[in-house]
Amino acid sequence: MALIVQKYGGTSVGSVERINAVAERVQACREAGDDIVVVVSAMSGETDRLLSLAKEINPHPHGRELDVVLSTGEQVTIGLLSMALEARGCPARSYTGAQVCIHTDGAHNKARILGIDDQRVRADLTAGRVVVVAGFQGVNDSGCITTLGRGGSDTTAVALAAALNADECHIFTDVDGVYTADPRVAPQARRLERITYEEMLEMASLGSKVLQIRSVEFASKYNVNLRVLSSFQGGSGTLIAEEVEDMEQAVISGIAHNKDEAKLTVVGVPDKPGIASHILGPIADANIEVDMIVQNVGVDNTTDFTFTVHRNDYDKALEILNQVASDLGAKRVNGDNKIIKISVVGVGMRSHAGIASKMFSALADEGINIMMISTSEIKISVVIAEKYLELGVRTLHSAFDLDAAEPEKA
Amino acid sequence: MALIVQKYGGTSVGSVERINAVAERVQACREAGDDIVVVVSAMSGETDRLLSLAKEINPHPHGRELDVVLSTGEQVTIGLLSMALEARGCPARSYTGAQVCIHTDGAHNKARILGIDDQRVRADLTAGRVVVVAGFQGVNDSGCITTLGRGGSDTTAVALAAALNADECHIFTDVDGVYTADPRVAPQARRLERITYEEMLEMASLGSKVLQIRSVEFASKYNVNLRVLSSFQGGSGTLIAEEVEDMEQAVISGIAHNKDEAKLTVVGVPDKPGIASHILGPIADANIEVDMIVQNVGVDNTTDFTFTVHRNDYDKALEILNQVASDLGAKRVNGDNKIIKISVVGVGMRSHAGIASKMFSALADEGINIMMISTSEIKISVVIAEKYLELGVRTLHSAFDLDAAEPEKA
Repeated sequence: MALIVQKYGGTSVGSVERINAVAERVQACREAGDDIVVVVSAMSGETDRLLSLAKEINPHPHGRELDVVLSTGEQVTIGLLSMALEARGCPARSYTGAQVCIHTDGAHNKARILGIDDQRVRADLTAGRVVVVAGFQGVNDSGCITTLGRGGSDTTAVALAAALNADECHIFTDVDGVYTADPRVAPQARRLERITYEEMLEMASLGSKVLQIRSVEFASKYNVNLRVLSSFQGGSGTLIAEEVEDMEQAVISGIAHNKDEAKLTVVGVPDKPGIASHILGPIADANIEVDMIVQNVGVDNTTDFTFTVHRNDYDKALEILNQVASDLGAKRVNGDNKIIKISVVGVGMRSHAGIASKMFSALADEGINIMMISTSEIKISVVIAEKYLELGVRTLHSAFDLDAAEPEKA
Repeated sequence: MALIVQKYGGTSVGSVERINAVAERVQACREAGDDIVVVVSAMSGETDRLLSLAKEINPHPHGRELDVVLSTGEQVTIGLLSMALEARGCPARSYTGAQVCIHTDGAHNKARILGIDDQRVRADLTAGRVVVVAGFQGVNDSGCITTLGRGGSDTTAVALAAALNADECHIFTDVDGVYTADPRVAPQARRLERITYEEMLEMASLGSKVLQIRSVEFASKYNVNLRVLSSFQGGSGTLIAEEVEDMEQAVISGIAHNKDEAKLTVVGVPDKPGIASHILGPIADANIEVDMIVQNVGVDNTTDFTFTVHRNDYDKALEILNQVASDLGAKRVNGDNKIIKISVVGVGMRSHAGIASKMFSALADEGINIMMISTSEIKISVVIAEKYLELGVRTLHSAFDLDAAEPEKA
């Protein structure tokens, strides 16, 4: 008998039919002998409805009051799911974040979980009940309702799993696991049976939106076995867990890509201390986030400074840079928003040399020019022209022996 | 400076515009120097939406879980109203029933308030804030959310006013006060400046649906000054309060009527002990509520037994009675669902003789036949044919000198 925390997102509980389907699945797990704690999000669309109602009243709603309003979305779902379980003869009890003492700091709309009192949940489990907990919300020192920000339900589930020392935390989504690449781009992509926290964090930060980064960090910190599963089909999903030493580990776990970036270069900047902050200061002041940064030594005591931003910020960043370049006496500003970033990710990289050169030569063999390179301990990213997206991903997927014998269903 | 508890129902907070209008009114009261505690209902339609969602999941939803779902309606409103107040620069703070410790018994969906911890509200008032409390809900001994049942927001407001020893409790509705009669029936009806709890209870039980009976009982028990006002227009409304000895009291405060009743008579029942229970037992078993009951001594050791029920229950009651009458050896059953009940209500009745005869002769002068009579200490009710509704109400309104010099706006 295992203790499992299950988390169902907004789409999985988006209608009465879907809620009934979740109840059926929970009941089946219960009857298989497991103790089940379920964390749910608001029904899909509900958080947006409440948010727009709030913004209509007050374009800049008070954080405390916004949390009072938004937290009702999950509260409705816990009640409905508990009813659905009871209707099936499966004893259940619902709890809001406050009721189950998900204690957070006071940062309304983006609170962080400080601790969970597991007494109440354990008592219900002992009494044979399924416990249904509202995700995304908690309570601060003063008894005010807080919310954890978008996607916070994943974090609630992981935090509960950690507090209860659960055997696994199952995150039900609309995909059936983590893939070696996006199957829409690379039909040969395979579902991974297992991936480490670090790899998952790199994949997530590179645009694979299977899990919230924060929940993976949380799982890593408390060593919670996290499993990504599909709400709509069967399968064992992908286990995200600690690195296992004796596991026969592939060198590369997956190929991630990101289509949301744009690249900007300040060409011919006089090379003196403080350039980076002179260029990136105004960009940060405009609340534009910077991803990759590369600086090359140039000729004549000048340098070229290149970085990437989100495509939505491209026009704004270009405008700022043109001003900055003229202030700095730089030659010109080049911009390109038809680029993509491709990354190879794998903890195996730590103990294997030659990954970078293998990556670069595979791309070169296809005539793909690399514009920028950035590396971390378990990841190598390159920026290439947008038109090479499919070719680049598929080439690397094959080069690192990730291709499935048969294409799997996405 | 007074402490006022204001309660706004679902229609008064039914849209963003309406919520803004409420915020404006609250702010004006605050700026006039009063301390304000606001109790709100769910936005109109919201409770029904949640209820039907719950019933779709489970036709007989678990009471505890239904309360978890239903209580979100008011929670949304408190957040939105607080935002609207803050947007106006009026400091406000919202509280759910649980947060402000509205302690109830455990009867989910129809809980009774046992006590309120006023510490938190007082602290906010002292800090200059408007306190916005969710009506209709509370928390039981085990920390579970409870609801008070329909109309419970009035009771929340009165209970808060009692706990805080407020100067007045204002109930904002879609009418501007309590009238001497229904203005749609009697154009000469006047708004009452003041009425006693007892009179209000009689009026309410007779079909004047201005206030929930339970909230008036609560106000009477704790001596809370209750004022009924319009959300949509000005005016001082009607004060419902203790009887004032030296007040120049009209003998009759108002003429109430009820169009929802139907009359049934078992004719020629053998007159022996236990008839009433033999007749009314099966009616009660069918969950049919009985209002007026009259038994006349007849001839030949038989009696006629007459009572009224809600019109919706008429057919069912008639069917049951036909069976009962045959069992009892009664002659026949007569039924009439084209009747109405008219009542004169007034505490002045206690010290004035001749009210009944004045009432009966006024009706007789208009040729209106009285079918049943029932009396209480401060009320006389008669059942007459439905076609005499307007004539009957207007005749009595004039006979007891209630007519306004000029017809008021309803």
